[in-house]
Amino acid sequence: MDMANKASRIAAPERNPQRTRERILVAALKEFAAKGFHGARVDTIARRASINKRMLYHYFQDKEGLFKAVLRRKISERQAWAENLSGDPAETLPFWFEAACNDVDWVRMLEWEALQETGEVIDEPERRAATERGLERIRRRQEQGLVSADFDPRHLMLAMRSLTMFPVAFPQLTRLITGRPVSDPRFQKERAAFLKKFAQAFRPSQGHRVKINFKDTP
Amino acid sequence: MDMANKASRIAAPERNPQRTRERILVAALKEFAAKGFHGARVDTIARRASINKRMLYHYFQDKEGLFKAVLRRKISERQAWAENLSGDPAETLPFWFEAACNDVDWVRMLEWEALQETGEVIDEPERRAATERGLERIRRRQEQGLVSADFDPRHLMLAMRSLTMFPVAFPQLTRLITGRPVSDPRFQKERAAFLKKFAQAFRPSQGHRVKINFKDTP
Repeated sequence: MDMANKASRIAAPERNPQRTRERILVAALKEFAAKGFHGARVDTIARRASINKRMLYHYFQDKEGLFKAVLRRKISERQAWAENLSGDPAETLPFWFEAACNDVDWVRMLEWEALQETGEVIDEPERRAATERGLERIRRRQEQGLVSADFDPRHLMLAMRSLTMFPVAFPQLTRLITGRPVSDPRFQKERAAFLKKFAQAFRPSQGHRVKINFKDTP
Repeated sequence: MDMANKASRIAAPERNPQRTRERILVAALKEFAAKGFHGARVDTIARRASINKRMLYHYFQDKEGLFKAVLRRKISERQAWAENLSGDPAETLPFWFEAACNDVDWVRMLEWEALQETGEVIDEPERRAATERGLERIRRRQEQGLVSADFDPRHLMLAMRSLTMFPVAFPQLTRLITGRPVSDPRFQKERAAFLKKFAQAFRPSQGHRVKINFKDTP
């Protein structure tokens, strides 16, 4: 508390700590997306958030603390979305593709992490747990007959991430292949329609359904 | 020729220019994969290739010339492979996935390019032409009935690239999801088997085949 009082005397008085946190996280995501964890500068984040650096450290211990906070915010946002989806791949695939298009900075932040990977990632245990919850959702959908049970949930999840994130992660390849920038609404519409149709690949095999059809139409 | 003579007097005498070019290209790929085009240093490439910088410039005008040469080499290598594949997605998907696993530096080089993209890419016209040849191959396979004609070839190509490159491009996500590093031969084997099976999604629709089956078994 003493530290907060001291900091608030240095910075402009802050009435809404929640809004300050929010402003810092927005600035941090922007900086991590632009330069990756190693290249990011806390000075730049503080300047962008119009906060003094000491105050920033009061909210988020250090650069790693900031990175963790951005990650956790994004992951919990995504988990809430996932819980609200029907689980039908024809809905989820276009949804996650559009989410990636609308959050290029998040994809870029993960892409920097990929290039700078050295073994463990920041916040590894939390992220493992979040992934495990995602796998549990896929298993549930397999039991409900929404997702094919012919495949390992881990490989299904990796395929879904691949299809929905790749066009945003490699905008130059998307442009070379489709002739449109990934930000072009026409491309996004076409791609969402493709994924909706292609989602068939994740559903229980046609064979099963054909069999059911036979029973229905004797 | 004068310049070459002069350079060879400065550097160690080089008997095999082809081998020198090769050594420079290997060193360049390594540097571009480690730091991206903007971060790469020609000094480092020259040192790694055990060649003096002036000699290196004799072979490849400048850093962009080097980048182009690496790109063209990789692209033509890949085109030759593509021409030799049967075109059955159950073969091509595992093939391109394994190719990505065996050439992490190539994936990383494209990933740096993605993060540093500003509009045009280096060697844009050549790369467009190579992509066009790839799309032509997909159209041919659609006509041959190897690949589903229900989808736009451009979207099929983007889906194939997504599925085969993503696990290598995002090794940390692959590890979080599957529990194994992308370099683990067990992961690679499992993934290739998944893709072989999943390739069904790219084949002409089950509906067609079901109809044929009906005719066969009256």
